[in-house]
Amino acid sequence: MNSKIIIAIDAMGGENAPYKNIEGISLFLKKNIKHEDIFFNIFGNEDLIKKEISRHKISNEMYKIFSTNTVVSDAETPLTAIKNSKDSSMWNSINSQIISNSNITLSAGNTGVLFVISRMLLKTIESVSKPALAGLWPNEKNMNVVLDLGANVECDEKNLVDFSEMGAALYKSLFPEDTPKVALLNIGSEEMKGTDTLKKAFSKLKEISTSGDFVFNGFIEGNKITTGESNVIVTDGFTGNIALKTAEGTAKFITDSLKKSLTSTLLSKFSILFSFFALKKFKEKLDPRKFNGAIFLGLKGPVVKSHGSTDAVGFYYSIDLCYRIIKGDLMNKIKNNLSHINEVSK
Amino acid sequence: MNSKIIIAIDAMGGENAPYKNIEGISLFLKKNIKHEDIFFNIFGNEDLIKKEISRHKISNEMYKIFSTNTVVSDAETPLTAIKNSKDSSMWNSINSQIISNSNITLSAGNTGVLFVISRMLLKTIESVSKPALAGLWPNEKNMNVVLDLGANVECDEKNLVDFSEMGAALYKSLFPEDTPKVALLNIGSEEMKGTDTLKKAFSKLKEISTSGDFVFNGFIEGNKITTGESNVIVTDGFTGNIALKTAEGTAKFITDSLKKSLTSTLLSKFSILFSFFALKKFKEKLDPRKFNGAIFLGLKGPVVKSHGSTDAVGFYYSIDLCYRIIKGDLMNKIKNNLSHINEVSK
Repeated sequence: MNSKIIIAIDAMGGENAPYKNIEGISLFLKKNIKHEDIFFNIFGNEDLIKKEISRHKISNEMYKIFSTNTVVSDAETPLTAIKNSKDSSMWNSINSQIISNSNITLSAGNTGVLFVISRMLLKTIESVSKPALAGLWPNEKNMNVVLDLGANVECDEKNLVDFSEMGAALYKSLFPEDTPKVALLNIGSEEMKGTDTLKKAFSKLKEISTSGDFVFNGFIEGNKITTGESNVIVTDGFTGNIALKTAEGTAKFITDSLKKSLTSTLLSKFSILFSFFALKKFKEKLDPRKFNGAIFLGLKGPVVKSHGSTDAVGFYYSIDLCYRIIKGDLMNKIKNNLSHINEVSK
Repeated sequence: MNSKIIIAIDAMGGENAPYKNIEGISLFLKKNIKHEDIFFNIFGNEDLIKKEISRHKISNEMYKIFSTNTVVSDAETPLTAIKNSKDSSMWNSINSQIISNSNITLSAGNTGVLFVISRMLLKTIESVSKPALAGLWPNEKNMNVVLDLGANVECDEKNLVDFSEMGAALYKSLFPEDTPKVALLNIGSEEMKGTDTLKKAFSKLKEISTSGDFVFNGFIEGNKITTGESNVIVTDGFTGNIALKTAEGTAKFITDSLKKSLTSTLLSKFSILFSFFALKKFKEKLDPRKFNGAIFLGLKGPVVKSHGSTDAVGFYYSIDLCYRIIKGDLMNKIKNNLSHINEVSK
C-alpha cells in the first residue's frame, strides 16, 4: 500500500500551460511544508516541464514526469477526441488512475473532452445513473458544494437523489468537522412548489435523510444559496449552470460598478488609500481563484477540472482541492452514502 | 376619448399599506410637475386613504377613491381568493379596467392571487398561450427586460417565442429610442447547445426577427445578462425565477461583505468619510427600488406587481413604470408584434 496521495497533473491543459501548472505545484509545496504525504505524476512535454521544474526548484523526490506528445485543444469535440487524444497529456493523466498509481486527476483543459474521456476510462459507479459536475460556492459561513453545474441538461428524481448523496459525501470529505445540509434548488420553499421531478426527489430525500448521511433542508430559493443554512445545493445541470453563471455575472457587475464609483472623482480616488486594507480584504474574500476546481462525481475515480483561464494561484487551489478530496476519502464516502439509497427503500 | 393616463392603485396591498401607496403617489406627483396627463383611481379603505391624501396634500383633481371593504391577505391561495375577494381593493382595481376607465392596475399584494384574478378578469390575449411575468434588471448600459420570472414552470417553444415578442414590445414602450435585442438564456452560446425546446425557439426566432420587431442575438449564458449586449432576456419561468433570485442573493452577499470589510477597523470606518459620495453613488445605482415592478404580459389589460416589502420610493418607481407603459402604448405594440409570428410562418 502506498501511503502518499498521488495527484496526476495534466500539465498541458489550460491557458499558459505548462507554466501556471508547474508554478501551481511549486506554490502548493511551499505552502505545505510537511508534504511527505504528497506526490505528483506530471503529464506533458518533458523538456518544457523539466525547465519549469528546475526554475521553481521542485525537489525530484516530489514528482515523476510522464512524457506525452499531444495536447487536447479547446476546439476538439468529445467525439473526435476519443480517436485523436490517446497520446495526450489529458488522456494519460486520467488513465494513470488505472494503469499506474494516481489517486486523482487534475486538468485545466477542454471540459467536454475531459468529461467524456474520464467517463470512458474510469467508468461510472454501478448504481449511479448519471455523473455530475460539482463546484464550490462561497456562503456567509463557509462554502457550499453545488451540483450539477452542467453535465446533465435534463435530470430525473433518481439523478437528483444520487447528486444529493454524492454532494454530501464531497462536502464531508472537504469539511470533516461539519454536517452536510442538503437542499434542492426551487422557485419556492413550500413542499408543493416546482416540477413533478422536484416533488418526487423531495419525498425520496426526506425518507433517505434518516440514514444520517446528511440533514435534508427541503427546497430553497436562489436568494438563499449564500446564506449558509444549507451547504449542499442540488439541481439539474441546466439550472445549476444558469445559476452559477448568473452569480458570476452579478458579482462582476457589482464589483465593476464599485470600482467605477471609487475612481470617479479625485476625492474618491484619494479615499481608496484609506480603505486600502479593507478593500483588499473584501477582494480576497471573494477571490474566484479560491473556488477554482469543479469535481466530476459518480465515476470510479475522482477528476478535478480547473478553470482554463485561471493563473498559478488558481491552479494551486485546485491542487489543494485534490489533496483534500483524497485525504477526506471521498470515494469510500460516496460508496457508503449511495448504499443507503436502496437500503432505506427496502 | 380620455386623454389622461389613468392608473388603478390597490391602496391596501403590501406591507405598510395604505401609507406607502399614497406616499408613492405623492412622490410621483412631486417629481412630475407637469402631471396634467395623469389620474389615479384609488381602491381601498376610504377613511384611511382620505387621511393619508390630506396629509400629503394631494390635489383632489388628481384622484377618485373607490371604497372597498376587504383586503387579500398574503395567506390567501389563488383558489379561495376567487370566491373570497370580490369586494377587495385588489379585485376592484383590476376590474376597473373593464367596468370603469382605468388603463393599468398596480398592486403590491399577494402575487399568486393577483395573477389569477388578473387572468380571470382581463382574459389572455387570443394568440398568446401563456401570460408571463416580466421584470427589469440592471445592465452595464441601461436596463434589461427579463421574462418569464416565475408564472410558468414549464414552457414550450411557442411560449418562448410569445415571450420574446411581448418582451420586445415592453422594452420598446419603456425605451422608445432604443432597439430591443432579444436573447434566449442557455448554458452555452452555440446553436446546438441546450434543450430541444430552446433549439426550436432559436430557429423560430431567427426567422421571425426579420419582421423588424427586434434584433435576435441567439443564446446567451447567465454571465452575459448584465453586459447590455442583449436587453430582452427570455427564459422559462423556473429558470428565470432561479436566475433572478440567485442574482439578488449574490448582490446582497457581496454588498454585505463590502459593508463588513469597510467597518471592520477604525481606519476603514474613517475612510468611509472620504468615499462617502462615491459609495452613495454606487448604492444609488444598484438600489433595488429602481427596478421595483414586475409586469404581467399577455393579458388584455396591463397589470404591474410591486414588491410587497418595498417602501414609498419603491412604490413610486412602480407608478412611474405604469405611467411609461401606457405612455409607450404597450398594448398596441404587443398586438402588432404578435401579429408577425403567424405572418412570417405563412
